[in-house]
Amino acid sequence: MRQSKLFGKTIKEAAKDEISLNARLLNRGGFVEKLMSGVYSYLPLGLRVLDKIKNIVREEMNATGAMEVLMPTLQPKELWDETGRWEGMKDVMFQFKGRGDSDIGLGCTHEEVITDLVRKRIFSYKELPVSLYQIQDKFRNEPRAKSGLLRGREFWMKDMYSFHTTESDFEKYYDEVKLSYLQLFKRCGLDAKIVEASGGIFTEKFSHEFQVFCETGEDTIHYCRECDFAQNIEICEENVGDKCPKCGGEVFESKGIEVGNIFPLETKYSGAMNACFTDKNGERKPMIMGCYGLGPSRIMGTIVEVSHDDKGIIWPKEVAPFAVHLVALGNDEKVFSSADQLYDKLVSAGMEVLYDDREESAGIKLGDSDLLGIPMRIVISNRTLEKNSAEIKMRAEENAELVELDKLLETIKE
Amino acid sequence: MRQSKLFGKTIKEAAKDEISLNARLLNRGGFVEKLMSGVYSYLPLGLRVLDKIKNIVREEMNATGAMEVLMPTLQPKELWDETGRWEGMKDVMFQFKGRGDSDIGLGCTHEEVITDLVRKRIFSYKELPVSLYQIQDKFRNEPRAKSGLLRGREFWMKDMYSFHTTESDFEKYYDEVKLSYLQLFKRCGLDAKIVEASGGIFTEKFSHEFQVFCETGEDTIHYCRECDFAQNIEICEENVGDKCPKCGGEVFESKGIEVGNIFPLETKYSGAMNACFTDKNGERKPMIMGCYGLGPSRIMGTIVEVSHDDKGIIWPKEVAPFAVHLVALGNDEKVFSSADQLYDKLVSAGMEVLYDDREESAGIKLGDSDLLGIPMRIVISNRTLEKNSAEIKMRAEENAELVELDKLLETIKE
Repeated sequence: MRQSKLFGKTIKEAAKDEISLNARLLNRGGFVEKLMSGVYSYLPLGLRVLDKIKNIVREEMNATGAMEVLMPTLQPKELWDETGRWEGMKDVMFQFKGRGDSDIGLGCTHEEVITDLVRKRIFSYKELPVSLYQIQDKFRNEPRAKSGLLRGREFWMKDMYSFHTTESDFEKYYDEVKLSYLQLFKRCGLDAKIVEASGGIFTEKFSHEFQVFCETGEDTIHYCRECDFAQNIEICEENVGDKCPKCGGEVFESKGIEVGNIFPLETKYSGAMNACFTDKNGERKPMIMGCYGLGPSRIMGTIVEVSHDDKGIIWPKEVAPFAVHLVALGNDEKVFSSADQLYDKLVSAGMEVLYDDREESAGIKLGDSDLLGIPMRIVISNRTLEKNSAEIKMRAEENAELVELDKLLETIKE
Repeated sequence: MRQSKLFGKTIKEAAKDEISLNARLLNRGGFVEKLMSGVYSYLPLGLRVLDKIKNIVREEMNATGAMEVLMPTLQPKELWDETGRWEGMKDVMFQFKGRGDSDIGLGCTHEEVITDLVRKRIFSYKELPVSLYQIQDKFRNEPRAKSGLLRGREFWMKDMYSFHTTESDFEKYYDEVKLSYLQLFKRCGLDAKIVEASGGIFTEKFSHEFQVFCETGEDTIHYCRECDFAQNIEICEENVGDKCPKCGGEVFESKGIEVGNIFPLETKYSGAMNACFTDKNGERKPMIMGCYGLGPSRIMGTIVEVSHDDKGIIWPKEVAPFAVHLVALGNDEKVFSSADQLYDKLVSAGMEVLYDDREESAGIKLGDSDLLGIPMRIVISNRTLEKNSAEIKMRAEENAELVELDKLLETIKE
């Protein structure tokens, strides 16, 4: 893509009301624009990042055997009355009236809807287990939405729900999803730790959070480096001191950003909503359920929080809006014509290239390149052309390297 | 995909409150499930169709040089006050209160949001023209939502907005989008006619609708077969009789389903919201705008309305959930093992195959295959295996053909 045609040019100062680091950098770089507190538009560059994250999520969820569906945002009160959650949700769920005085809520989570869907189409143990997920815009009437993409009133979520005939079948899948989550976060450039957290009031089991340690995180985690055990401070026994309950080793506290969480739901929803299957003996039993959430938009914000320097963002390879940022320096016909040729060559080779073909100063172009954070920068200038070369620099590294134009493609592929 | 693992098995009778043909067939086939009036979940098969339509839309919009963005669903009243549309939208827009007594509306259209976005990032004629689109869940407080996917309270829309410095530049792009729309509908298997319609109260120009002629359509169109001219009856002069205003030929009336519409917006929004650019002479002028809508979910419903028979849906190739439906008939080990092999072979060749590996009767399997409407059916049974063959039948055709297993792959590719 030619940068001269790209909508969303960079701006020098982030909007004044943006206080979080992720929102400031993403706003300056032309990735997002705030419409109201906790509500963002994604400009072309930002949407590319978000879509890449969603696709990684999709691939990893499909690999567990899950199937993608898409449920509605509008939800009728009647369904939530079956589990008795309508009243309790008033604080976080946008609720309003539709025509005919019907009560409607905006989807903040979908246990009721998925359980309704499954009870309509699944009847026998032969059809289980099944795991269904969606990647969807979610809504929460959030009181403190000041953390950019980390805490939105409108945000993207992948929510998955699994249905099983036995506890052990559920546990097997739950563990599989744990590994799949770690793999997924790794592909997004995030080192996420599995953290024990409360399972809620309806189970004695723990749930599990996936936390990225980061100073700007809202959660506090007890973490033992020796055995990698971690607990959300919310569930730590009082006076636990600084000893790890697993290995007795020293425990540190860290701030963390929660990028995902998974819950055993047991039969809480299937029981209340009569989502049953017939077992081998013809007996009807409620399905055993699990739920598995994560936020693609929050992941995007978290990546920026942990992967940046004072010049801008440093996108990990798999989620970067483009793989290569080709920058033509010096507003010179010879430079532009060489860069044009190289651009065509790279695109033909199947690479995702943002090509800065604008007539701007070297200072502006290099500054923008650092701000945008594309993993590899290739500069073409009169100086590099004198040596029939281009300069390659990785965003995350200090050193640049001159490479002959003939050898550029193979060097990049390495 | 193995059908035994597919969530959303077919059902004999559509839900009782489904009266439209598209919803009845889509519900029976396991493509969609209604949650409330005008609000649907997409099951795996339905989501595949919807995603294919969205991708065709994306490709065709990108080909016009437009860029994809994603705007929020939640919109603040303040923005709509700038154009004075908040009050007038009360009937169709879901409006409610958020925290701090703020007024929020659910996105039914995005002229205000996109104009706000563009005025924040574009300042000079050098940065124009620009065309931006999104593919997004939209909401309307619809009084009569009884037509399945044709008229939803929650539905998918592609809305695109273009910004220009001159009227002639706008017109050039508007005509380009017209052609792009025709191409797009053709790829979806729809023969859409361009129909003149009212431009609304703020312009003397016409807008243009894209109508698929169909008995179940809600609109009435005057259409002249001789010169292909068409007008929505809403704007026909009184006493126009049955003569075409263009060629004097005979005019027929047809019912139509509107699958898209495009509007010249002139400076209605840019003027009200001060979305201006500086021209070559340093003068500030409001941008000239156009908007271009279409509904991927409505397209899905329309395809079913016009492409079906009494056995089920007949999906056009490019939007079909799978290209091939492989059906193993006769619950016989030899049949399943041959079908398994063929399935692996087709998938390895890059084909999208739904494989009916269920232990069900031939009647149920063939009935389901017709209902699902996948373009090509390949049957493996003891009868076909006796001749070392499989039977190929196109869903839209009557005749089946026996093809030797060795030659199957090349035959399919033809």
